[in-house]
Amino acid sequence: MRSGGERLEAYARLAVRIGANVQPGQLVGVSAHLEHAPFARAITREAYAAGAEYVDVLFTDQHVRKAHIELAAESKLGYTPSWLLERTDAIGRVRGAWISITGTAEPDLFADLDGGRAGRARMLELSRLMLDQTDQALVNWTVVAFPNEGWANAMFGEPDVERLWGALSHTVRLDEPDPIAAWSEHTERLERRAASLNERRFDALRYRGPGTDLTVGLLPEADWMAAVDTTIGGIRHVANMPTEEVYTTPDARRTEGVVRSTRPLVIGGTVIRDLEIEFRRGRVVEARASTGQEMIRTHIDSDDGARRLGEVALVDGTSRVGRTGLTFFDTLFDENTTCHIALGGAITQAVPRSETWSPEERSARGVNYSSIHTDFMIGGPEIEVDGLTADAGAVPLLRDDVWLLEPAGITVAD
Amino acid sequence: MRSGGERLEAYARLAVRIGANVQPGQLVGVSAHLEHAPFARAITREAYAAGAEYVDVLFTDQHVRKAHIELAAESKLGYTPSWLLERTDAIGRVRGAWISITGTAEPDLFADLDGGRAGRARMLELSRLMLDQTDQALVNWTVVAFPNEGWANAMFGEPDVERLWGALSHTVRLDEPDPIAAWSEHTERLERRAASLNERRFDALRYRGPGTDLTVGLLPEADWMAAVDTTIGGIRHVANMPTEEVYTTPDARRTEGVVRSTRPLVIGGTVIRDLEIEFRRGRVVEARASTGQEMIRTHIDSDDGARRLGEVALVDGTSRVGRTGLTFFDTLFDENTTCHIALGGAITQAVPRSETWSPEERSARGVNYSSIHTDFMIGGPEIEVDGLTADAGAVPLLRDDVWLLEPAGITVAD
Repeated sequence: MRSGGERLEAYARLAVRIGANVQPGQLVGVSAHLEHAPFARAITREAYAAGAEYVDVLFTDQHVRKAHIELAAESKLGYTPSWLLERTDAIGRVRGAWISITGTAEPDLFADLDGGRAGRARMLELSRLMLDQTDQALVNWTVVAFPNEGWANAMFGEPDVERLWGALSHTVRLDEPDPIAAWSEHTERLERRAASLNERRFDALRYRGPGTDLTVGLLPEADWMAAVDTTIGGIRHVANMPTEEVYTTPDARRTEGVVRSTRPLVIGGTVIRDLEIEFRRGRVVEARASTGQEMIRTHIDSDDGARRLGEVALVDGTSRVGRTGLTFFDTLFDENTTCHIALGGAITQAVPRSETWSPEERSARGVNYSSIHTDFMIGGPEIEVDGLTADAGAVPLLRDDVWLLEPAGITVAD
Repeated sequence: MRSGGERLEAYARLAVRIGANVQPGQLVGVSAHLEHAPFARAITREAYAAGAEYVDVLFTDQHVRKAHIELAAESKLGYTPSWLLERTDAIGRVRGAWISITGTAEPDLFADLDGGRAGRARMLELSRLMLDQTDQALVNWTVVAFPNEGWANAMFGEPDVERLWGALSHTVRLDEPDPIAAWSEHTERLERRAASLNERRFDALRYRGPGTDLTVGLLPEADWMAAVDTTIGGIRHVANMPTEEVYTTPDARRTEGVVRSTRPLVIGGTVIRDLEIEFRRGRVVEARASTGQEMIRTHIDSDDGARRLGEVALVDGTSRVGRTGLTFFDTLFDENTTCHIALGGAITQAVPRSETWSPEERSARGVNYSSIHTDFMIGGPEIEVDGLTADAGAVPLLRDDVWLLEPAGITVAD
């Protein structure tokens, strides 16, 4: 067993070498909360060791953000500092790398805030700029999480950080003798699964279960992918650690029916529980939740695309995240427990050449455009997922969380 | 006695209302180390309460900086991110406010680093931009300190934060029933002292004591001032809390002799002890130190002005900082224990209109220009300070740390 310091170092190495895959001479932007400082420091050292030219760590603090939401003038809630835009733009200009650290220390910190103000206190221009940058594959990037007391407390009711480390280490394969080799094998398996879906070219997916009867239309030109991307400069990187999903960009005009979220989700520090959404002709016409309802309603009013789907992802019961049996209250993990969909901007990598389309052209072709991208979980053993063919035939994809579709002739290791 | 939370709130109010004197509608930049988070949060709330439009807290981390000094390529040591320049410039453009938090948590963190690399790892362009901004009085600003365990440990050999709070509260007059009124009275007293020096228009100051025999030429057009400034927009602010000094800009061409520092100083995390400097015709020709010698030598090679004086300041034994009997290992405090001088950029506010002069014109007129401004302490009960008149007459200013010069007819309260 590794010591705490060695574990952190090995984890930082995984984030830098496999996740962002930092190259010599790259400018590296790291985003962290104050509580992530030990990991941010370890990542900084590993990034310099990988040859980074300069590592810029932007520490943000949820208490400072809370003061802004509570106390700033209404007209200044969405204020975006020019220097944050310049930071993002500058790293894109030089084809730099991003490493984002997640794992909130106080998941309920914003619970007592006015949901409307919290929803409006977003730097839309900045998130649009970041989405454009990843759409255009300018930067190699990853999102990784750092266990901390507050997060452990939210998950377990006690600040058992070691228990969280144990769960997390399993999901990011740090518990393997050779984590780097384990990641190689794992991403290859996900890429084979994506290939098996691409062979079939389903016209739509159908989800059925308690509170859910949803059909999501697919685009004939969209590919299924694993969360392994390649930049325009040819740098392969793993965008999420952990990742267990295969995903594609759905047709934003063809979502119909109702869906009940099977896990809580967190938006800007507010927990949304028991979310139920109804879609008609691709558009959310109703959103209800037992907590955070005002937040989700403000959120889907962010812009025209915020009420349509930009992603659909499939995850089965072999997921290491799902197998922990835990709710992490963090999308990075919870989206990898089970099937999910996302409101907001499409993942253009899944639709060849769509990153060059104007927002109007994207809308016209069903590739959603928005400043938000918000995943929520809709899968689990009670949910049946079918692939629908153009002639309305149904192929079972998931039953009891078991993946049923494999390409002929390929044996997949568990 | 106030509770910890009330004390922090009262302190933040002092920093915001008296220190920076934040005005409604202002953009406020706060600089903090990670260890200053509680104070940065309290300041953020007070600044919004004072009507700030947006409060941007930039958290920096000494461990991240250390990794950069240790591991970055030599050619990238002085790398300055464009977004940090933009942040500073943007706040100047809109006539915003700055609040800088000091109080290092690990004063010896950089002790094992290569002093040359540490010296070269400075964002010169950024510090030049900030000095230009304060020279031009665009922004209302203050520097305040936050007690923390590491700092207390460096001072007392144990992490006695309450003891540090006690000492600090006295120096910033938080222990007064009405700290805001106490500050008014205190700054008026310092301003009267500056006025008494301005009446005399000394030609030079002379310092004599163990290891010290130094004459610093003064500029006929320079004024003595207290650390109370007024921006071009008319906002009065207290630039340092605590402050006990009166200061002026000396003639950078007329420093002669040797001086021994009477307290340690810290440059970029490196402690410089037992500093001895020799000046000829205004220029440092020799610098020695028992620790940090390489750092100070690299530092004075930063640019042409780094070897000349930009400030001379007088502090007597009534100083609340001096009376604590403590060495704080932080210039904000240690420079207010006793008399000091500074290598590097002049304080242009002390020389009317000099902020509009080009670097060349400044040099020609003895108003030093540099990207550094580094104070070190040269006073104490063993040091005799005289004001020299143009005809070489000597007027005693300080003996045994007692201030001897008062304008006729004014009684000064202790």
